[in-house]
Amino acid sequence: MPIRKNFQYEFSDHNERVNWLEKRPEGVKRVLIANRGEIALRAARTCRKLGLESVAVYSSADVNAPHVWAADRAVCIGPPPPKASYLKSDALLEVARATGCDAVYPGYGFLSEKADFAVACADAGVVFVGPSAEAIATMGDKVAARRAAAALGVPVVPGSETGFVRAEDAEPLALEIGFPLLLKASGGGGGRGMRVAAHAGEFRAQFEQATAEADAAFGQADVYLERFFPRVRHIEIQIFGDRHGAAVHLWERDCSVQRRHQKLVEEAPSPALRPETRRRMADAALSLVRALRYEGAGTVEFIYDVETAEFFFIEMNTRIQVEHPVTEMLTGTDLVAEQFRVAAGEPLSFGAFPEPDGRYAIEFRINAEDAARNFQPAPGTLTRWRPPTGAGVRLDSHVYETYRIPPFYDSMLGKLIVTAESRARAIETARGALARFEVAGAPTTIPFHAALIGTRAFAEATVHTRWVETEFQTMEAAA
Amino acid sequence: MPIRKNFQYEFSDHNERVNWLEKRPEGVKRVLIANRGEIALRAARTCRKLGLESVAVYSSADVNAPHVWAADRAVCIGPPPPKASYLKSDALLEVARATGCDAVYPGYGFLSEKADFAVACADAGVVFVGPSAEAIATMGDKVAARRAAAALGVPVVPGSETGFVRAEDAEPLALEIGFPLLLKASGGGGGRGMRVAAHAGEFRAQFEQATAEADAAFGQADVYLERFFPRVRHIEIQIFGDRHGAAVHLWERDCSVQRRHQKLVEEAPSPALRPETRRRMADAALSLVRALRYEGAGTVEFIYDVETAEFFFIEMNTRIQVEHPVTEMLTGTDLVAEQFRVAAGEPLSFGAFPEPDGRYAIEFRINAEDAARNFQPAPGTLTRWRPPTGAGVRLDSHVYETYRIPPFYDSMLGKLIVTAESRARAIETARGALARFEVAGAPTTIPFHAALIGTRAFAEATVHTRWVETEFQTMEAAA
Repeated sequence: MPIRKNFQYEFSDHNERVNWLEKRPEGVKRVLIANRGEIALRAARTCRKLGLESVAVYSSADVNAPHVWAADRAVCIGPPPPKASYLKSDALLEVARATGCDAVYPGYGFLSEKADFAVACADAGVVFVGPSAEAIATMGDKVAARRAAAALGVPVVPGSETGFVRAEDAEPLALEIGFPLLLKASGGGGGRGMRVAAHAGEFRAQFEQATAEADAAFGQADVYLERFFPRVRHIEIQIFGDRHGAAVHLWERDCSVQRRHQKLVEEAPSPALRPETRRRMADAALSLVRALRYEGAGTVEFIYDVETAEFFFIEMNTRIQVEHPVTEMLTGTDLVAEQFRVAAGEPLSFGAFPEPDGRYAIEFRINAEDAARNFQPAPGTLTRWRPPTGAGVRLDSHVYETYRIPPFYDSMLGKLIVTAESRARAIETARGALARFEVAGAPTTIPFHAALIGTRAFAEATVHTRWVETEFQTMEAAA
Repeated sequence: MPIRKNFQYEFSDHNERVNWLEKRPEGVKRVLIANRGEIALRAARTCRKLGLESVAVYSSADVNAPHVWAADRAVCIGPPPPKASYLKSDALLEVARATGCDAVYPGYGFLSEKADFAVACADAGVVFVGPSAEAIATMGDKVAARRAAAALGVPVVPGSETGFVRAEDAEPLALEIGFPLLLKASGGGGGRGMRVAAHAGEFRAQFEQATAEADAAFGQADVYLERFFPRVRHIEIQIFGDRHGAAVHLWERDCSVQRRHQKLVEEAPSPALRPETRRRMADAALSLVRALRYEGAGTVEFIYDVETAEFFFIEMNTRIQVEHPVTEMLTGTDLVAEQFRVAAGEPLSFGAFPEPDGRYAIEFRINAEDAARNFQPAPGTLTRWRPPTGAGVRLDSHVYETYRIPPFYDSMLGKLIVTAESRARAIETARGALARFEVAGAPTTIPFHAALIGTRAFAEATVHTRWVETEFQTMEAAA
């Protein structure tokens, strides 16, 4: 196995030691980590922390990725394109079988929200660390998810009940819902296959593009329609359920700083929510958890109209999210460890959490992208990587100095999370941490974040989900 | 000003920005940081976070120390020996006057527990960020502190009411108290001037050494006697008070892993305390806070006899402590920020904290010491310094790659703090973090910590304050 060690191996006799004091989750002993990057590294470390063994998989482009050497074993499963490795469910299950794994950890992205994969895991007799295939399927189909929410009395955005593949079929309903109108791939996620038609005149052109993108990205061309709110905030509720019927929420994250539907900054609590609205939103999320008999970690996403204090369900992510650390910092939890416990059949280790008390956490995605050039991904070799440390600073990352960023995957190098007693102080903590973050070899989003937190709009929490592309970048270009 | 910048400057227009949303503590605007090392760096960052200006001081040996460039201004106050710089109170107050500071932050060590300095600050019209000179004086005199505690009904270790300078005067009382007996410099701290007489036969020899050491270290030869418990744990209660009468404790830290009275590892909560004892200990600490009308951060230290569940007051530290981060991680507080707020006359920002709920934090002191050679300090140049990052990992440090460790000060390079949902998991988190911690150029205590957490005694919390020198080192030597 071609593993180059850039730092010391961790101990390998940890299982014996940890078991002096604490048992590993019952029913799970060895975990296949079906992912890469920071979440795979985090999962390997969490396994170790819990006394579980771990098996990493990697593409030939990830030979030097730390998740490979942080796990107890690692198996190369194919060439760099995701379809040939990280998305290859039969190969993953073959590795799980061959290495004696009794569970598969999907992380986020890749196979994490593929109901078929959850079914295949069950068929192979390994625990899928996530909710039931049924919950994934229901929530993964945007239309079905919308119906499920509406049936529970959760407000949904006015929109179509079904997906469309032909513009002429969709147009009458589009005119009825009104403009601006969002076109959204039914099988999509992460901003791909999404288009906005500002007025009736551009509906057909945008629709064609959305279906073409959806087809290319997800092999599923149908697109559904939704009323588009140009100035809303994105707020999501972190939830957790277990097979014993527990349903808990961990309050919200506010992910309004996005660019083209890609989250860039996430914070908790939301600086824009009123306590009463927060409670109603959390209750709405819990009603979904209960109705789905949901097991494991999930997130119920809403858009929130600050002016009217209305919120609308947009989708549910049936997996851990990139931005889960902000919730961990405020609740003192380890959500990845909790995923393993719940998947092993244990009851949730926490109950209801008190309302936010002023403490704040903000996460900044450190991407290898050049914000000055339209956030173009810019792979390269990290000739310098010196993250900040100190009070209130956390970094979740899988890269290191001399790391060569493979061009095949998303461009995230890590997540910088700051915590403080108030939002203003968290922003000041972030300012120092971003200033101390030294990276060379690839452009990153660090200068973007540093500029962002210096704006009045961010400080006063008046940004909305389209603020970066419509106002911030215009402002920057003019400067 | 000869400042070499090894990393980017932080923004300097932060004050204007932070004040959009939050006011700085009233009555304090500009702070002189009368310290060095990680606590000075932390103080400078905290000032920035609070919207306060900061002025650093440094000795000529600390020209390249980050606290110098993290502050808004920096002034060189003298040559390396502490007496010629960091301990020179008149020079510090002259700098405070010249730079328009209205407060002085003492940190730990140096002048932090010198009542004279607190008085001099008051005379100079600047706020001393700490308790009253009277509280410092009372608690700084070990005999007076003991009396104050006893008067409040707080159990104290059987011992002498006064200090002695001559062995023949002390001997009758020594025989009365019994052996083993601890000899402790009245003006001391940090383990210097401390000796143990195991039996009557060695009393005189140990006494002579203790007085000589006390005289040399503190210019005060008197030594007092205390019953010595060879197998106790060191447990301390973090407290906070304000001038409005608030008195709060933040539960305990267990600092039983020591070597020659120098703490090496600190954790919270204590793995050895029963809930009922914990409450009684916290109440005892609070009674002192109230009696002293104590303002700011302080720590009431106890020894705890696991077998009998008895505890005895040993001393109170009237300052922030090195190990305060473990408490911060469990309570979600910033104790340094709180010191500034309270010094500025604001009420405490927190009330009572709930009892420990299972979450755990452990701090490891990363010292430039060679544990294999009797923990001999080993200054050098850090040719490699790559601290670990990730979930549950915090590092408070003032050093960086290429940093030259000055031989004039304590050997602490930083503090690694891990946090998890249980002690066993915190130990596993520490195991990984210590394994990933890459340092070259000077030996450190990292291998010691890695070996320590692998022992059954540490895992099962059976260590006592003399365990490192009596059992661990013997075991290591035999291996």
